[in-house]
Order: sequence, then C-alpha cells, then structure tokens
Amino acid sequence: MKKNKYKNSENSDHNNLDGIKLSTIFSGIKQPFQDKDDLLLIELDQSCPIGGVFTKSSTASAPVTHSKDNLKSSENPSVRAIVVNSGNANAFTGHLGDETVNIVSNFLSRKLNCKTNEVYTASTGVIGEILNPDLIINGLKKMNAVHETNWLKAADTIRTTDTFSKLSSKKCLIDNVEINIVGIAKGSGMIAPDMATMLGFIFTDANIPSVILQKLLQEANKKSFNSITVDSDTSTSDTVLFVSTKKAKHNLVETFSDIRLKSFKASLNSLMLDLAKLIVKDGEGASKFITINVSGAVSKKSAKKIAFSIANSPLVKTAIAGEDANWGRIIMAIGKSGERADRDKIKIYIGDELVTDKGMKTNTYSEATATKYLKRKEITISANVGVGKSSSTVYTCDLTHEYININADYRS
Amino acid sequence: MKKNKYKNSENSDHNNLDGIKLSTIFSGIKQPFQDKDDLLLIELDQSCPIGGVFTKSSTASAPVTHSKDNLKSSENPSVRAIVVNSGNANAFTGHLGDETVNIVSNFLSRKLNCKTNEVYTASTGVIGEILNPDLIINGLKKMNAVHETNWLKAADTIRTTDTFSKLSSKKCLIDNVEINIVGIAKGSGMIAPDMATMLGFIFTDANIPSVILQKLLQEANKKSFNSITVDSDTSTSDTVLFVSTKKAKHNLVETFSDIRLKSFKASLNSLMLDLAKLIVKDGEGASKFITINVSGAVSKKSAKKIAFSIANSPLVKTAIAGEDANWGRIIMAIGKSGERADRDKIKIYIGDELVTDKGMKTNTYSEATATKYLKRKEITISANVGVGKSSSTVYTCDLTHEYININADYRS
Repeated sequence: MKKNKYKNSENSDHNNLDGIKLSTIFSGIKQPFQDKDDLLLIELDQSCPIGGVFTKSSTASAPVTHSKDNLKSSENPSVRAIVVNSGNANAFTGHLGDETVNIVSNFLSRKLNCKTNEVYTASTGVIGEILNPDLIINGLKKMNAVHETNWLKAADTIRTTDTFSKLSSKKCLIDNVEINIVGIAKGSGMIAPDMATMLGFIFTDANIPSVILQKLLQEANKKSFNSITVDSDTSTSDTVLFVSTKKAKHNLVETFSDIRLKSFKASLNSLMLDLAKLIVKDGEGASKFITINVSGAVSKKSAKKIAFSIANSPLVKTAIAGEDANWGRIIMAIGKSGERADRDKIKIYIGDELVTDKGMKTNTYSEATATKYLKRKEITISANVGVGKSSSTVYTCDLTHEYININADYRS
Repeated sequence: MKKNKYKNSENSDHNNLDGIKLSTIFSGIKQPFQDKDDLLLIELDQSCPIGGVFTKSSTASAPVTHSKDNLKSSENPSVRAIVVNSGNANAFTGHLGDETVNIVSNFLSRKLNCKTNEVYTASTGVIGEILNPDLIINGLKKMNAVHETNWLKAADTIRTTDTFSKLSSKKCLIDNVEINIVGIAKGSGMIAPDMATMLGFIFTDANIPSVILQKLLQEANKKSFNSITVDSDTSTSDTVLFVSTKKAKHNLVETFSDIRLKSFKASLNSLMLDLAKLIVKDGEGASKFITINVSGAVSKKSAKKIAFSIANSPLVKTAIAGEDANWGRIIMAIGKSGERADRDKIKIYIGDELVTDKGMKTNTYSEATATKYLKRKEITISANVGVGKSSSTVYTCDLTHEYININADYRS
C-alpha cells in the first residue's frame, strides 16, 4: 500500500557486537501470510546490564507491564534474552496476555539457565487479540537453525506498517577504547509522545552499569523518541531497551556525570535521534518531514508543548501536505496550546523567511517564496513566541490521503 | 466541494423577536466573488443586556479582544449592534486589526447614537489578512435598503466552509409568560474546545440582566459548544454572544438560581446543544456523527478529558470512517489521555454491544454485529473506565479523505 520512501543505508555487517546473537523466524503470528519474519530473539551470552523506558499509557500491554516489573525487581537489573514479535501487540488481553508472557519467560529462562526476570518481551501489532504462546515457543524452538548476526534482518522482523527497516550505529571513545553502539527501531503510526508507538533496542559494548544506562537512556529519550509525533496517538506498547555487553576493555563507568562519557552521550543522542527521525520519515502516509523549532518560551516544557501543538494540528499538517503557506494556522496552533505567548511579538519563519512580526504579516513576506519552499521534502517551521528564553525542537510529518487509506482499513 | 448533508428545517418566519432588526449584504470581503452575503448587522432598538464567551486562544482575534473589553467595561454591559463578517477573521492583523474594529464601532455608535462599547463585532475566515474597514463601512451604509428579519438569511451570511445554515429556536415560560429564544451559529472546521471554531448569536425576549445572562451562557456552553470537536484545532475567533431584548412582560429575573428560570435553562441548553450538534454534523468532510459517552471516571473533568482523547484520536476517527470495529484504538485513546482508568475494569460499548470486560474482549462480542452497527450515520461509543462515578458526553465526527481535500486547499 505504501511505497518505500527512504532506504536505510547502514551496512549491517559493520554493526556486529560481540556477545549478541540474533535469530529471526516466521512464526505465524502476523497473519495473513507475510513475506517477512515476525519473531526476533536477541540473546546475550552473559547477564548484561539493562535500562528501559516505556509508554505512559494507563492501558499498557502485558509485555510493557512485565518489562517494567523486571527492571524494578532488582537494583541492578540484567538481561539474557529479548523476544520481540510483530503482528500482535498482546495489549488488552487480560490474564491471558500475562500468561503468554510468563510462558515465554519460563521457557527461555530454562533454556538459557537464567532468571525469568532476565527475559524481556515486546510485542507490536493489533490490540485486543489473544497472542498464542505456542506460536512463539514453536518459533523459538525452530530458530536454532537460522541464527545470524544481521541487525538489518532483526529490524525488518519487528516492522508492522513500517515501509523500511530502521537501524543506526555509532562509534565513540571511552578511555581511548573504541566503543560501538547499535540500535534498531520500528514505528510509523500511533506515534506521539510519550513515546512514539514504537519499539527500540539499543546495544553497546561500553562497560556501564544498569543504573547509569537507565539515566543515559532517559536523557537521550527526551530529545529523540519523546520529540516526535505522527498523529498525536500514543501506543499501549512503546518500549525502548538499552543493553550493555560490557565487552569493551575500559574501566567501569561509575557515575552518570563521568567526564569520560562525553562522547558516548553525544553518540547515543545522535543514534536515538537518527532512529526517531526515521520513524517520522516513515510516518503513515507522510510525504514531508517537518522540523518544528519553538523558541522564546517561558520554559522548556512550555516550548515543547507549543511545538507539539503545531506538530499535531491537523490543519497545519494538511496545509503542508497541500503546500499551502497558510501560516495563520500556525498562529492558531500556538494560541490553542494554552501556553504563554505574546501575540504581538510572535515571529514565525517558514524556512528562513520571516513571516510575522509585531502581531501581523511582515512587509517583506512573499507567499510565492514560501509556497516554493513548501514544495521541498524536508520543511522547517520556526516560531519565537516572545515571552522567554527556552526552546524545543520536535519532528513530525504531514497529514495526507494516504494516512486515511492506511488507517481506515489497517486490519482488513 | 461538499454536499449538503443535513438541512435545517427551522421555519425562520416563526423566529421573529421584537426589537431586533437583521440586515445582510455582500460587501466584497469574501473573495473571490461569492453566491451569498458576507456581512450581517444585528441591530437592537434599545440598549440590551448582553453576555459572552470566547476562545481561550492566546492569539485571539481583534474582534474577540474588543468584545471582551466591552463586556468588562461595565458591570451591566449592554449592546445596540452586532456586526459579523465572513471571509476574513481579522486575526493576527496587529494594530491594523484593532483600527478596523474601532472604525466600525465609531461609525455605528454615531449612527445609532450609542456608546462605542455597545457595538460588538465578530469575524470569521482567513487568519492574517488585513480586513479593510472601508468594505464594512460601505456595506453598512448600503444596507438600509435591504432590511429583513430573516434568521436563516442571517445564519447563511456568517457561513464559511459550512455547507448549511445553523439555526435553532425554542419557546418556554417564565411566570406563565411565553418566552422566545433564537440562536444562529456557524462552524465546521478548526472545531475544538475551548470552544469550537465557531460563532454563535443567541437572543431572547426574557427580561434578564446581563450578569445572569453571562452565567446562563457559561453553564450551557460547557455541555454544548465546549463538548464538541471536529479536528482538535481551536480557533482564534470563537465567540458566542447572548442578548436579551427585555420585551417579555414578566417580572425581572434577579438571581441565577431563581426557580422561575428552570424551563428557560432547559430550553437554552437544548438550543445550544442543537447548534453544537449541527456544527459537528457539518464537520469538514464528516460522514458520520459520533457521540462519545465516558462514565466511571474520578471526576467530571477527567471524564471529559478521556472523552476528548477518544474523540480527537485520528486513529479512532479513521477507523470509524472505514467502518472498522477496531476497538483496540479506543483502549489506546483511553490510555493516552493521562487520566485514571482501571485497565482490567474498562467496559467499552459500540452502540449497545459490550465489547470488553475484565481487561479483554468479551466472549459475547461479535465483530460482525459491531461492523454492521458502524455502517450507520450516527454512532455512539461508550466507555466505563471503572474508577469512579463521574461521566461526560462529547460529540465528534469521523476523519475522511474529504477533510484532507477541504483543508489542503482551503485558500486556493
């Protein structure tokens, strides 16, 4: 139904991390028959530190609930296996949903000789349908034959309506030792903070304990997965896990503020922003990638709320889809945010062009120039709201006929 | 571009109220040339009590700012004239926007020999374009020849993308004296609380002072214009004014809680709900009218927030457009609201059919029945969130291709 709009150019062969084994298979969960695998097992060769962030939905899925419990069950949570399926979200499936997660966790803890709270699961797909544990168990049993270390294949396996696989990798240094970070993600609809309707799995060989992984993940999440929106809808299943294999030969990092983490933090931020942007670029029906910069707000929180008010406005998104420089809708969206803004000081820019000042359109503004700019694939809208010094950037896409096509018959 | 989906069956001849003169004309504001008038003057034969409610947007239009100032300028605000134009919102037009309102107010105050703060204006249409006061003044001057008392014509004049005119009238009793209430409204897009992108003008012959009119309006507004959404976008121009001609021969109502107001309150609520529903039925691109009932919430505010989270969800709205009983999206929308809900006690109904209980789909649920129900034009979705006793009802429409058509090229 959707065309491939972007291709992920990462070379997956360069993304190998020691101590991680990836396996995929078509288990039969994603029905009707599919042309790709639907079950992914990520296996660690030893107990590894883990952090995680999740949807804030009050109707969160069974895998989300169990993963949060795993993380809370120990001061230094660890992981041996992550099982991910597409095709069924195992959300709103009551006690049967919990049972499925328990059956899978018990099976793998016996197989890998680890604790059940070292097995994490994540599921994405239709909400409200029972996820048959037999399909997963049978898939896991058959997987022995198909082991590979192919991150692109792993990213492909967890896709739902995604049109391309999402992968990013970075290298950086700690104590002059080369460090690798690799991440995969999925998501293209039901995308809004907190977080996007998305799954993300990030791995590094840096030797970092779970409590610091957790903080690093939370910080980077604010500016990446929590700064994107496709359609303002928030999933029941959002999960990002962050695991360290501890294979790199540097001294253990013991504090979040350790100066040695500087380049690592930058690389992690960059990797997560890459993945977040890939999700927006693959937004259901999206034809344009839109960056919204808000500045001059009274606080970071206020700036972000205004930015999301613009990014989520159906009228702004349809105007951009129509390449119509209807900037009045941006004014409207600032106004409806409920946040402080000085109407007579708001400066709006379409690309680099100043559109408004002193409470009205500037004399220099040219609609022809703005309209030409809106024909681009990547659009930047900026707004200074004139009441403070805080800023925020969020990313979104336009709202097109294709979004309606995809979502009016997703299940059929 | 849009077909007439509903017709307003009110007979405007029965809606005459003594002391009100309606005039309309094509002034040239609504360009390119239109097949209908774009300027309405509502003239009162004496100073009449008035109340008003407005958009909470921080980028409110010049007419909104001036009308609010008028109401605040006196303990007993009064009105002699209301001027309404379509085609230009006079929003985000800086000091020139204020000047236009002042020129019109001065002109009418001289002509009618009243105070400038007895002249109210309201504008709807494109944001950010300068509204030329000469067009309004020339229109007002020429109007003398075309006076009529035709509420349907008045409602027609204030339309923008509306496909039909919105009018409602009621009769009730105070002290056994027959009381008339008549209201007109416009709105079909940029519709969300607070309030809808809408204008409403309501008149009664009941003898009620402005301070009580204001309270009556605010109360009725909560359950009508503040309980509807088309696209979650809030306008810069929302205005509802409520005027009493004082012609009815009953003793003055002196308190809001006066028992004599009982039938009047019910009639006013009913009239405003009529108008609010007409706006949703005319929602841009709407093919279905949707009622969302939320119960079992911890507070009225919480119930309303959950109801709007469902009503504004693009995924819920596209599923209903596609007549797809994808109830998982309703669960998602409850979850993302940020309000308290007990996942394992949520009961969702599509029409009268119970879909979920005990955290999962019920055994009795039939998707075939639900799908058949969703083929109707008017849909009711109900959710009990299982944590309290408060409830709320909101009204919305589905999200269709036609919405994209209308809004991707509104100005072209």
